[in-house]
Amino acid sequence: MPLTLTCLPGIPLIRPGDNLVEMIGTALERAGLVLQDGDILVLAQKIVSKAEGRMLNLARVNPSARALELAASIDKDPRLVELILQESREVLRTRPGTIIVEHRLGFVCANAGIDHSNVAGLGDGQEEWVLLLPENPDDSAHRIRQGLERAASVHVGVLIIDSHGRAWRQGTVGAAIGLSGMPGLVDLRGSPDLFDYTLRITQVGAADELAAAASLVMGQAAEGTPVVHVRGFPYPLREGSLEELLRPKELDLFR
Amino acid sequence: MPLTLTCLPGIPLIRPGDNLVEMIGTALERAGLVLQDGDILVLAQKIVSKAEGRMLNLARVNPSARALELAASIDKDPRLVELILQESREVLRTRPGTIIVEHRLGFVCANAGIDHSNVAGLGDGQEEWVLLLPENPDDSAHRIRQGLERAASVHVGVLIIDSHGRAWRQGTVGAAIGLSGMPGLVDLRGSPDLFDYTLRITQVGAADELAAAASLVMGQAAEGTPVVHVRGFPYPLREGSLEELLRPKELDLFR
Repeated sequence: MPLTLTCLPGIPLIRPGDNLVEMIGTALERAGLVLQDGDILVLAQKIVSKAEGRMLNLARVNPSARALELAASIDKDPRLVELILQESREVLRTRPGTIIVEHRLGFVCANAGIDHSNVAGLGDGQEEWVLLLPENPDDSAHRIRQGLERAASVHVGVLIIDSHGRAWRQGTVGAAIGLSGMPGLVDLRGSPDLFDYTLRITQVGAADELAAAASLVMGQAAEGTPVVHVRGFPYPLREGSLEELLRPKELDLFR
Repeated sequence: MPLTLTCLPGIPLIRPGDNLVEMIGTALERAGLVLQDGDILVLAQKIVSKAEGRMLNLARVNPSARALELAASIDKDPRLVELILQESREVLRTRPGTIIVEHRLGFVCANAGIDHSNVAGLGDGQEEWVLLLPENPDDSAHRIRQGLERAASVHVGVLIIDSHGRAWRQGTVGAAIGLSGMPGLVDLRGSPDLFDYTLRITQVGAADELAAAASLVMGQAAEGTPVVHVRGFPYPLREGSLEELLRPKELDLFR
């Protein structure tokens, strides 16, 4: 079976409290898609965060002394730096405009996943609002999955993604930040290859590969297509979590 | 248009000198696919390397003093270490069994992309053969693309991929190592978002996102499906190269 990724058209702009499950259901109908066992819905982090009310008005943020100092050194809004620090466990590196952190959710990313774009329309001053990542994206994915499964009587996976930079490569790629009902990591160690030469080291970041694929079809500027329907995911669905994808700190060579 | 990725069935085991263009053409026919303008063919590095005769018999490798020393410190075959060093510009990190290098092609990867698995059947001793990456994967992609375009009178892209680990995440993901006729990086900076708030930093690693998607459907153990046909790539095709995806060393915070 081919792997098919379809953007669901007509998802409206999301506001706090919106019911994503209903909106996805309507969008699936509009696209003529009927959910089947094994399908996966991929959601851009932004709509999950907005539905969960994770917007903050920068005007109400009081930067700490540490945030003020760091902000001055990298030429960045100290209120934003304050939020980045609050959302992070550790600062790994800084460069002008960018703070690479270990997010409180455990992954490494730039600016704790907080940005300005696409959060306007929520207050009176466009630049004053920012959006934090969901409180617990695995839980968010699980709730959305339960809603979809109840409505359609099928077993599906749900994946929440964001765009991440990479240490050594240019350009962002989609990465998993939360998931439910699908594997994060697929362990092929011990599988024989074509010559019965046992694969020794292969663990596949399957959820990240799917995140990248979905990110490709969502595009970056188009908040209008934040949900992608996936059919043909090649591995069996199972319970899964973001944790599987996080390299334990003691195995990290690049802190 | 949905993004559709289809594994081409029945690609035979590749041997040095094999004509990949013909084999892909036959496999497309078998799959009932007729190439269209804008389609992309994604090839696993292994078949390109094999067709180009990039196998080496380890028995013929004489490790240098440096390779012997490094091999002892990380418990790895010194002949393999010798080849890894020959294929690399710089060693970034080591841990038992693994050397993270800047490959001579410019990207950072483990063990210079050299491994043992799936290279048997070429000599008498299964474990004695290893496969190096193609000499110049952009050129390889370009030659294959020219062959496909001539045969089918269409404009297509060709992408050669390998599986790479990531600095902070578990599991490998597909990554571009060579390309032709498609963008590596897509620059959306300056594009307006839904609120006309200009995107300031977004460059998308589009070829890497597609590499991850294709890697997902190829699987890891299955050398039988090393070619994936892609329809619905969302960005315009153009000339492109691996270089676009490589972060300049002076901007690299994680050496």
